[in-house]
Amino acid sequence: MTKYGPDHPETTYVAHAFEERIFDTGEVRLNHAIAGSPSKPALLLIPGQTESWWGFEKAMGLLQEHFQIFAVDLRGQGRSTRTPGRYTLDNMGNDLARFIALGIKRPVIVSGLSSGGVLSAWLSAYGPPGLIRGCHYEDPPLFSSEVNPAVGQSIRQAIGPMFALWSKYLGDQWSVGDWQGMQQAAPNELPQWMGAMVRFATEASGGEPPQNMKEYDPEWARAFWTGSAAASCDHARMLARVKVPVLMTHHFRMVDEKLGHLMGAISDVQAQRVCELIGAAGQKVDYQSFPTMGHSMHGQDPELFTRTLLAWTATLPNPV
Amino acid sequence: MTKYGPDHPETTYVAHAFEERIFDTGEVRLNHAIAGSPSKPALLLIPGQTESWWGFEKAMGLLQEHFQIFAVDLRGQGRSTRTPGRYTLDNMGNDLARFIALGIKRPVIVSGLSSGGVLSAWLSAYGPPGLIRGCHYEDPPLFSSEVNPAVGQSIRQAIGPMFALWSKYLGDQWSVGDWQGMQQAAPNELPQWMGAMVRFATEASGGEPPQNMKEYDPEWARAFWTGSAAASCDHARMLARVKVPVLMTHHFRMVDEKLGHLMGAISDVQAQRVCELIGAAGQKVDYQSFPTMGHSMHGQDPELFTRTLLAWTATLPNPV
Repeated sequence: MTKYGPDHPETTYVAHAFEERIFDTGEVRLNHAIAGSPSKPALLLIPGQTESWWGFEKAMGLLQEHFQIFAVDLRGQGRSTRTPGRYTLDNMGNDLARFIALGIKRPVIVSGLSSGGVLSAWLSAYGPPGLIRGCHYEDPPLFSSEVNPAVGQSIRQAIGPMFALWSKYLGDQWSVGDWQGMQQAAPNELPQWMGAMVRFATEASGGEPPQNMKEYDPEWARAFWTGSAAASCDHARMLARVKVPVLMTHHFRMVDEKLGHLMGAISDVQAQRVCELIGAAGQKVDYQSFPTMGHSMHGQDPELFTRTLLAWTATLPNPV
Repeated sequence: MTKYGPDHPETTYVAHAFEERIFDTGEVRLNHAIAGSPSKPALLLIPGQTESWWGFEKAMGLLQEHFQIFAVDLRGQGRSTRTPGRYTLDNMGNDLARFIALGIKRPVIVSGLSSGGVLSAWLSAYGPPGLIRGCHYEDPPLFSSEVNPAVGQSIRQAIGPMFALWSKYLGDQWSVGDWQGMQQAAPNELPQWMGAMVRFATEASGGEPPQNMKEYDPEWARAFWTGSAAASCDHARMLARVKVPVLMTHHFRMVDEKLGHLMGAISDVQAQRVCELIGAAGQKVDYQSFPTMGHSMHGQDPELFTRTLLAWTATLPNPV
């Protein structure tokens, strides 16, 4: 059975257009790519769950004339260190805090997708003082990636069953690695409303995992499904502490009529609550809805992503 | 009912011999005292659970001719910020990592007592690279403060029942505050072998909490008793990652004959396993046993503490 990850680089990684580098946080080797001139404002790009830094590759081509870009692999993804038993939002957020303070060494604008959007929220609340200029949350599963959220659907009522499937059939650090068994089990083990995702899993990938999944430690999925990832990092509490301006882009979402489950990253009610909490914390939140956009705008429409990000950064107190 | 903590400074705090200062980590205001000359090696002192920085006051008087000393209040203790729902070893360790990297701004020697000794272990494993010269673990409850340790007695079989009592009768952020009810309940709710501690709680304190308890957020006790404090921070895994020289001082301990419970901070078997793991990680560990010494050597015998620390720091690769 094929194994993937940093211990199996020959079966895992491929070449990319931007050079990759390593930053040592003290606990993990944080892989990242840098693009653009140091004379431009610093922009930190945080991928989503199952995404490596190169998910931003097309967007980086457009953004690099405006920013010095730092696109990272989070712990347990891409070429960064696997950290069994230690996949928490707080640990991932602090990896980024150290990278900003000791690696980038100047104030940054942050944009993160999905779980990376939750980490963008984390940096907006708990980041080192004076080093975070503003944070873009790209379709973030706030509340909806918690096992017991303050508002709306829990992870069990959203993407969670897919994570449970990955965890069971792929295993921590690909210790199980039964990609075919997972494809076969998907129709039985996932809720019916995940049909589109099931078809993705069984058809689009063919016989082997897609590149992004090879670079992903399935223990991430277990950590989110069981709740250990967000333990001691309640989202409502975090959002009440936001201390910088925020752009939140909200993409496709729909509520399943039968079970009330969430199809998409975050519901309208949850997004509204996010904005209320940030406003109550005294910060400006620019909420933009893109109801027909897929989960990753930076992947699907890098031009729109770039325009949207640039328009918002121009409104920051110290404009870009 | 009297409340304590930063929101009630007039009933909580008293004056001290060293000036107190605030460092903003981004999430917490980290109170600390500084002593000694910047021309001397930097020494970070981490108090134990229910201890504020001034627990080191006598030792600081002796140490300040040899070091520039930074003695901190951990989050939830002393004058530092209370962080409900967020008392984890990883968050506390990262508070210290930020303080070292952005506040002290040079390599430090670390000495921590008890839970502060566990955080000293955390910094020896997960601290920012190049900034930790060596770590003293003063009578640290390694393994024994976990709910499900790899080796030896769990927290339930050690100090845990006392934490459960504090949590129940004092409440998060002193929300219950029933000091007298706690004293009355202690003989019934604590195991018999905690007799000496019960007598401490019922007699030594008189009618009101001692100064150190007033400055302590009892949510700490709940976080350790329930296991949320050490979640995603397995001690065995952490010790296997130690990357700097260690001094471990092991004080009074005894095993209760009837239940096998641990009286003291860490058993002989647990201490032996700590040393094995650090050795296997390629680091030198200087283990010193003081079987008649109370939990806090720096409090009980500051002269011996100072001599012991100085003798060990003289053996560091870059000697002090």
